Amino acid sequence: MIIVMQQGASDAEVANVVQQVEATGFRPFINPGVERKVIALLGEVDIDKVQLVDRFSTFSGVERVQLISEPYKLASRHSHPDPLRFELGLHPDATRVTIGGSELVVMAGPCSVESEAQVVGVAHAVKAAGATLLRGGAFKPRSSPHSFQGMGLDGLKLLATARAATGLPVVTEIMDPHDLDEICRYADVIQIGARNMQNFSLLRYVGETRVPVLLKRGPGAKVSDFLLAAEYVLAGGNHRVILCERGIITFEDSTRYTTDINAIPVLKRQTHLPVVLDPSHATGDSAYVPSVAMAAVAGGADGLIIEVHPDPSKALSDGKQSLKPDQFSVLMDKLRRLAPVVDRELQAPAASLA
Amino acid sequence: MIIVMQQGASDAEVANVVQQVEATGFRPFINPGVERKVIALLGEVDIDKVQLVDRFSTFSGVERVQLISEPYKLASRHSHPDPLRFELGLHPDATRVTIGGSELVVMAGPCSVESEAQVVGVAHAVKAAGATLLRGGAFKPRSSPHSFQGMGLDGLKLLATARAATGLPVVTEIMDPHDLDEICRYADVIQIGARNMQNFSLLRYVGETRVPVLLKRGPGAKVSDFLLAAEYVLAGGNHRVILCERGIITFEDSTRYTTDINAIPVLKRQTHLPVVLDPSHATGDSAYVPSVAMAAVAGGADGLIIEVHPDPSKALSDGKQSLKPDQFSVLMDKLRRLAPVVDRELQAPAASLA
Amino acid sequence: MIIVMQQGASDAEVANVVQQVEATGFRPFINPGVERKVIALLGEVDIDKVQLVDRFSTFSGVERVQLISEPYKLASRHSHPDPLRFELGLHPDATRVTIGGSELVVMAGPCSVESEAQVVGVAHAVKAAGATLLRGGAFKPRSSPHSFQGMGLDGLKLLATARAATGLPVVTEIMDPHDLDEICRYADVIQIGARNMQNFSLLRYVGETRVPVLLKRGPGAKVSDFLLAAEYVLAGGNHRVILCERGIITFEDSTRYTTDINAIPVLKRQTHLPVVLDPSHATGDSAYVPSVAMAAVAGGADGLIIEVHPDPSKALSDGKQSLKPDQFSVLMDKLRRLAPVVDRELQAPAASLA
Amino acid sequence: MIIVMQQGASDAEVANVVQQVEATGFRPFINPGVERKVIALLGEVDIDKVQLVDRFSTFSGVERVQLISEPYKLASRHSHPDPLRFELGLHPDATRVTIGGSELVVMAGPCSVESEAQVVGVAHAVKAAGATLLRGGAFKPRSSPHSFQGMGLDGLKLLATARAATGLPVVTEIMDPHDLDEICRYADVIQIGARNMQNFSLLRYVGETRVPVLLKRGPGAKVSDFLLAAEYVLAGGNHRVILCERGIITFEDSTRYTTDINAIPVLKRQTHLPVVLDPSHATGDSAYVPSVAMAAVAGGADGLIIEVHPDPSKALSDGKQSLKPDQFSVLMDKLRRLAPVVDRELQAPAASLA
Repeated sequence: MIIVMQQGASDAEVANVVQQVEATGFRPFINPGVERKVIALLGEVDIDKVQLVDRFSTFSGVERVQLISEPYKLASRHSHPDPLRFELGLHPDATRVTIGGSELVVMAGPCSVESEAQVVGVAHAVKAAGATLLRGGAFKPRSSPHSFQGMGLDGLKLLATARAATGLPVVTEIMDPHDLDEICRYADVIQIGARNMQNFSLLRYVGETRVPVLLKRGPGAKVSDFLLAAEYVLAGGNHRVILCERGIITFEDSTRYTTDINAIPVLKRQTHLPVVLDPSHATGDSAYVPSVAMAAVAGGADGLIIEVHPDPSKALSDGKQSLKPDQFSVLMDKLRRLAPVVDRELQAPAASLA
Repeated sequence: MIIVMQQGASDAEVANVVQQVEATGFRPFINPGVERKVIALLGEVDIDKVQLVDRFSTFSGVERVQLISEPYKLASRHSHPDPLRFELGLHPDATRVTIGGSELVVMAGPCSVESEAQVVGVAHAVKAAGATLLRGGAFKPRSSPHSFQGMGLDGLKLLATARAATGLPVVTEIMDPHDLDEICRYADVIQIGARNMQNFSLLRYVGETRVPVLLKRGPGAKVSDFLLAAEYVLAGGNHRVILCERGIITFEDSTRYTTDINAIPVLKRQTHLPVVLDPSHATGDSAYVPSVAMAAVAGGADGLIIEVHPDPSKALSDGKQSLKPDQFSVLMDKLRRLAPVVDRELQAPAASLA
Repeated sequence: MIIVMQQGASDAEVANVVQQVEATGFRPFINPGVERKVIALLGEVDIDKVQLVDRFSTFSGVERVQLISEPYKLASRHSHPDPLRFELGLHPDATRVTIGGSELVVMAGPCSVESEAQVVGVAHAVKAAGATLLRGGAFKPRSSPHSFQGMGLDGLKLLATARAATGLPVVTEIMDPHDLDEICRYADVIQIGARNMQNFSLLRYVGETRVPVLLKRGPGAKVSDFLLAAEYVLAGGNHRVILCERGIITFEDSTRYTTDINAIPVLKRQTHLPVVLDPSHATGDSAYVPSVAMAAVAGGADGLIIEVHPDPSKALSDGKQSLKPDQFSVLMDKLRRLAPVVDRELQAPAASLA
Repeated sequence: MIIVMQQGASDAEVANVVQQVEATGFRPFINPGVERKVIALLGEVDIDKVQLVDRFSTFSGVERVQLISEPYKLASRHSHPDPLRFELGLHPDATRVTIGGSELVVMAGPCSVESEAQVVGVAHAVKAAGATLLRGGAFKPRSSPHSFQGMGLDGLKLLATARAATGLPVVTEIMDPHDLDEICRYADVIQIGARNMQNFSLLRYVGETRVPVLLKRGPGAKVSDFLLAAEYVLAGGNHRVILCERGIITFEDSTRYTTDINAIPVLKRQTHLPVVLDPSHATGDSAYVPSVAMAAVAGGADGLIIEVHPDPSKALSDGKQSLKPDQFSVLMDKLRRLAPVVDRELQAPAASLA
């Protein structure tokens, strides 16, 4: 941490800061700058540094305080130099999948679970095209209270039925901590939605389980906030976290969100956790999903999560951004050609879509 | 709702859309534009329009679909032309305050409750300066899991002690639905923090109570999302919601957030709910709090929520943005002179700060 | 400037950076941090520090490089502790006005000059209401090449006619350096529009004149970029620059831009240059102009620039955001009551509006 | 265009709007909505629609006015359904290159021209790696007036020398219209920099030439503004415009800008003009350039513009984002493997880098 003093800070102000630094256990180190003095904190003290930044910022004569190291430790690549690989699909009915390695992991399925026919049908279709996980929402976060809110527990059961039929592990979202036990029973991967990325209470509950977590980036969250949110889950002892970029909110309005493609290499550099991208939410328009999916994989993503619906015009949510099974299959063929260019493999498609 | 067809959409595509519109119960109305056809939906049908927009967007030949009326009904000024006024401070120890009328309501206190001496001391100080509610966090949402997370239930009890000592009604934040009963017992106003603005599960729980709610705008939320979040609370039957602008996330980095001052007149036009502003979080720097507080009141806010700490350099959270009691008192004097210019009144200060 | 080394940077990498620092003439100063080394540059060397940041960033083992002092010198309050006051209206026909002092300066007039009747009529009206400068565009920057582009030289002459009739000094925009001589002949204040804020070539030309400059902030420009743009004008020897906040581009879409009200106190702290706000462009809607104008003055602005049109529905540009003369007059009455609360004065209105 | 009336607009207000619409020559068409009336404008009238939107917005009883068709015509794909292909490199010394077709066009070179050895050396190196155009700045737009501003005319001559030595056509930036003739003499492609994207005066001058234009997107410009800026050039009769995405300004601060990868498929859908991406400026960090370059090509870009410097640590500008020649060569090898996956070709590298 460094403390930058204001230009013209008095000797008394500097002396006070030095004394306060000493009181924390750090050794203060004054850089005698010509324009401004800068005080560095040396040593290793077990103290909340984020809070310290805030506190030193209030002292008289201080211009600003900066952390030199990241505020997240568990999510940082410094403590885990190698990329993390782990298995998904611990449920007996599931076929296991490894994320974080050379396997390109594609999770696909409908935004919302709507019926057995729909979810089992889509599961077969996406599996045939080469997807290895099934996504589907039973509890849906909707901007309006008047919109369809999901099938709830019945939806979870239908996802389990689809898993039994296809072997695809299931990714589904949690919204309410009261549903934790039920979701842990049915899901192979628990999704934390973008709007709950800083629902710290929910992050803690999920961190206490040992079910892998797909953490979606909040549309207004910086990469550093995103990693701190992951830190909440990791701090509970659950170290199997997948980070999901799904678009950020910007001034651009030709798409629903702006895909932060830069975040792919940034995250791969800063953390050992696997990174996937959701082109469906990040664009909001199925016409743009294939381009952005290809871009994500070429840019280094470990996987994708894509909305697929048998009949998007009848979807109860987010139909506009859903691919039809045949469009998804065409995309998967392109991804299969792309994968080896970036040293990845994508599962071969099943013999037929029928 | 209007459906804009693509340039060159075929007659069959138009006919299909028309047929689908009829199936919903609306009457389709085709504007024979030269470049593009536009189909309007007439009539009043009890159906989820947000979902309908999404569904029609997927039809072949459709360029885009637009809602003409707002997706929120309960929060809209169209159904409540007059500004809403209601009382805060129903607890027997509290002195009642009316928000939404000519009274300028100032809520003040520490970011986090830290000790009885701290919170009772601040309560007396802010009351002496003219504040009429006490704010203070017992459960704290912190970006890092390694930061101080609040005193919890003990903090709630200290807030009650401060209320008993001063008569100031208490505003405090809820993070976990499991704490709802305890918070309802102690709080006069339940705060939903910015990061939980779209924690729809929490909004529903709070909407089922009858305790007034202070809903903070998410840093990445549009005004329309903000009103939809309020709609969740209103939909549960709890109609006493106060909207709080607290800064949005933008590219500007000289302040922590960007105060959206435009949102004050925009919200006053679109909703009947009272609107307050939090200059402490919206700037992140106590040096800027007085200017922005003055701006908010001159711009039409119904009140303010301001962080005040007896010794910001010792605060366990957000010290940099906290005013000292004497700085707060100076600001209140300026606000007292400003209030009548915008047809408001601010409570006279107590006889002395001692 | 400080250079933060990567965690695990080798001794050779540190030694190389130290040697490169010495080569610049600065004295390197190593903070032996536990996690990362930080090298501070001491001494005062006449060198382009922005470029140096960039260069040191490329060295092996360097994590990042940070400037401790601002990259702008001439615009910084450190070199000019007192707010700058200067006179506007040097043309013989103009009544002089002082900006930067206790006088609240209101510039008002149409977006575009359209006819003699229009501009002279508005000039009389805004003067009667208490405005002390006339704004009006002769050369118009329009997003579309198919939109009205302004009257050009004829527009300048009509502005001069209005000045002769009312004594109001004239503010008008330059777009093309080829027009510089003509604009200097007619204008009392040259406006650099928001889209040209980083047209560095134009800034240089204007910096070589001695005509006061109204520099509008670019909608995508940070405060630090804004001050660097002012630095271009100041570097040419023209020190009379007025900074104008006019809204930034954000994700919020209920208004055309987001007024950055925080920028008012931020700029007042960082620079000695006067600061005004343009509520017309910053909101894009005349319904919100009065609130935001009041907020700006309460927040510390030295003045306002407001669009007024006799018949906004017939305006050739930006009619939606223009006030009618009577609406402007009502606003001025409110501002006149507000001014003394913030230790400002606003000129009394003329005897009658007729 | 449609005009949405306010809820509760009076019959007289509707009648007035109808009358005004008729006065423009359009036929008004009233949709008798239940909540709000919507008036559509039918027919084809040669009138500035952007201005009309603004004007109708001011009428009493009007809620908002929306354009149904895009305000740009010449840049729209509707008038040019096929992608535009054209040749670059008309100078006798240049080897011609076709952009907009199957050839993947890579422009590479230093940010600033610094010396003959530097620019000729880089030209040979990037050609050897497979680049087909040379980029280099002679006139540099720098945020600070105290930074290196480029070599000017001497820089242009060095670029010509490099072209003579390698056959690579030259891309260079114009800042001042006074330099137009000189730049047209030396450049094969004139670059309009991001900060001048809405320097409409400069766009007009360049539109009057017949030299191909590389138009960079402004960091705060929407896609629609970007296309309107291209419209300015096209309106002058110069139809050879290349659009360049180079990152937009957002709240994310882990990279200098946020690459708007969505803009690639959006632009390819909305316009026939070729689209390239600049990963150097869009990330600001050479560590992220390869990932984002790969993403852009996989996402559908027609080409790339990349900064390459023989010794980034000695670059006079933007060294941090420059690749070294060997890093560039590695990237080109990856792009060469990627190209056929998206039906593109990339020129084979020369026999050796020596």
